[in-house]
Amino acid sequence: MIDIAVLGYGTIGSGVVEVLKINGDSINKRAGDEINIKYVLDIREFPGDPVMEVLVHDINTILDDPDVKIVVEVMGGINPAYSFVKDALLKGKSVVTSNKELVAKHGAELLDIAKENNLNFLFEASVGGGIPIIRPLNQSLTADEIVEITGILNGTTNYILSKMSDEGIGFEAALKDAQDLGYAERDPSADVEGHDACRKIAILSSLAYGMQVDFEDIYTEGITNISDKDISYAKALNAKIKLFASSIREEDKGVYAMVAPVMIKANHPLYSVNDVFNGIFVRGNVIGDVMFYGSGAGKLPTASAVVADVVDIAKHLNKNIWTIWSNKKLDLESVDLMKHRFFVRLVKDKRAQDRINELFGDVEWVPEVVENELGFITPEITEKDMMDKKGLIDGFLGSIRVRF
Amino acid sequence: MIDIAVLGYGTIGSGVVEVLKINGDSINKRAGDEINIKYVLDIREFPGDPVMEVLVHDINTILDDPDVKIVVEVMGGINPAYSFVKDALLKGKSVVTSNKELVAKHGAELLDIAKENNLNFLFEASVGGGIPIIRPLNQSLTADEIVEITGILNGTTNYILSKMSDEGIGFEAALKDAQDLGYAERDPSADVEGHDACRKIAILSSLAYGMQVDFEDIYTEGITNISDKDISYAKALNAKIKLFASSIREEDKGVYAMVAPVMIKANHPLYSVNDVFNGIFVRGNVIGDVMFYGSGAGKLPTASAVVADVVDIAKHLNKNIWTIWSNKKLDLESVDLMKHRFFVRLVKDKRAQDRINELFGDVEWVPEVVENELGFITPEITEKDMMDKKGLIDGFLGSIRVRF
Repeated sequence: MIDIAVLGYGTIGSGVVEVLKINGDSINKRAGDEINIKYVLDIREFPGDPVMEVLVHDINTILDDPDVKIVVEVMGGINPAYSFVKDALLKGKSVVTSNKELVAKHGAELLDIAKENNLNFLFEASVGGGIPIIRPLNQSLTADEIVEITGILNGTTNYILSKMSDEGIGFEAALKDAQDLGYAERDPSADVEGHDACRKIAILSSLAYGMQVDFEDIYTEGITNISDKDISYAKALNAKIKLFASSIREEDKGVYAMVAPVMIKANHPLYSVNDVFNGIFVRGNVIGDVMFYGSGAGKLPTASAVVADVVDIAKHLNKNIWTIWSNKKLDLESVDLMKHRFFVRLVKDKRAQDRINELFGDVEWVPEVVENELGFITPEITEKDMMDKKGLIDGFLGSIRVRF
Repeated sequence: MIDIAVLGYGTIGSGVVEVLKINGDSINKRAGDEINIKYVLDIREFPGDPVMEVLVHDINTILDDPDVKIVVEVMGGINPAYSFVKDALLKGKSVVTSNKELVAKHGAELLDIAKENNLNFLFEASVGGGIPIIRPLNQSLTADEIVEITGILNGTTNYILSKMSDEGIGFEAALKDAQDLGYAERDPSADVEGHDACRKIAILSSLAYGMQVDFEDIYTEGITNISDKDISYAKALNAKIKLFASSIREEDKGVYAMVAPVMIKANHPLYSVNDVFNGIFVRGNVIGDVMFYGSGAGKLPTASAVVADVVDIAKHLNKNIWTIWSNKKLDLESVDLMKHRFFVRLVKDKRAQDRINELFGDVEWVPEVVENELGFITPEITEKDMMDKKGLIDGFLGSIRVRF
């Protein structure tokens, strides 16, 4: 029997308890031993819930119990999760977490501690919910140099953008719908401003390139400026607008990373990733393009990934599963030099087309979509160039990066 | 240093040599040791190729060399691959293979031998080329009961169907094009009759359900009967025709498995898997739906998966990576009881619609696509029912299963 402790009895924590109950037999078979929840830690009480039998309020009960081999941290946030996880590792317990903030900020250090102590620190559920992506990056794509990771990593924003596109409604209305359905929080800024996706691409990039990518360094734009008019233009172009979290390694240059809305067409593997689903596209220098798709959030899918990590640790109780993520900082290249085509909207006037052609050279004009507006797509130019030229466009209304 | 031997210097074998050359540094870092190709076995000579330095013609040179820790079998076919692999395992060498025939037929036995000897037998490249699917099934989806695996597992047939759809050409013309491009063999029957996909779904099903699924038991239809007219109907329905290799577990019943063309619409995650790409859709009882996409064949993508297995073995030299695939046979349910909707084409005549309505009850008529023909979609009925009713349809021209 392998005793585990679950820190936090919220959505994911109760999902973990549920998954171990529903699929206990096959999970134990795959783990090669019985997984037993000895403790659940929460500050709250849950009268009437069977969890009361194992509920504790003091982390030390868990840390001081040598029988507990695996600690499952599903509380979220940095404090007190960080100190609980670190203490657990220092007490000889392996740790599974779904906590993207914790992993993005302290992943390298916690992996080091796990390694030094011949333990494991696994975090499959921290990115992409149930989608297997951390383990494939670590263990399946090991023959490749990763040259790009691009993900739709935030289900809330993907739902909002899908809803705007499907129903022709604006951002605010779609956000309200997402909030009503429980897909978005009351304070939706972490999602809609791109911060959630930013932490996730920081984790994936750190793993892909083996060095610490600080999420604070990643240029991040959210979707709050996307309007129903932008969506109409996208439709006219047979395109969709998606919030991409991306890191790209260019040979002899370095790694660019960015979170921003982009327009893509049906030939992009992430085009069909709609609603709350997530998708992660990976390009390797020998494997070519691969893509992983599934539920990026939700109680049971996320719990499935957490429990799979528990099973993996059960099979590696005295063996560190090697993860290459050094604490050496990877200095990202300035996005100023990153190149995109840009879709641009502006107020229509008689001389606008001439001025735009003068400014950008040959552009691709979009057939009229909105009255008294013009839309066009620039040639490929750098971010810096675009930033400079934006200021020179009379009646500039907005721009969106284009990947086609 | 870890010495390995590569059996077969064909497309994949030379790809393995190339991948280890291109990405040697990062591969060695991830393996934690230097991977060294000590031998390449082939009956041929390769004058002028650097491989000559390590080329051998006698398998015993490899089997008798205790330095060789990992044997990479990329010859294909059952003989002599089976005896080479078995002998290698019995001599204490772990084995990586890309050989779907070998794995489908002897996977359970070879896994057992590897386990008994504390070695590993890995075969990521045997299904889906470079796409990580075997390792995710074994190690990431361990918290789930798998209820469905459906794959587009054969790039050749997917290319042919995509080409027929994109260019409105017939099967024979698309096949010839695939042959000209080297995507299809001179004798294309293993691909177009579905046998290749059949072996692959047998492997995936054995892993998903943990028991031996014999490929001979799987009902298999190819794409040779798909005509340009069928494609036109599919287009009229906003659908595509794909060769699906599928196994579905129904609670309290059992497992159905089938390889056959199906019509799907854009809401199916495999709808966008076009050309030579492969995609594998997996449904678990807690994770929900996940999908894996990438190059299903090709020299470097396949070699990437082979080398990733080598890296995994290098990290588990004295530890068996547990794979649940017992040699106990899983008796598949008869597909007679499997249910689908069916698209049906027939010769148009005055009373045809009345007779069809009488036979099937409420059907969905497809607006006219081909002159003097009628097309409709049946309600959900069993295979047996459909088989019986086919014989009663005057002017019956063909039918295709529908998944929407």
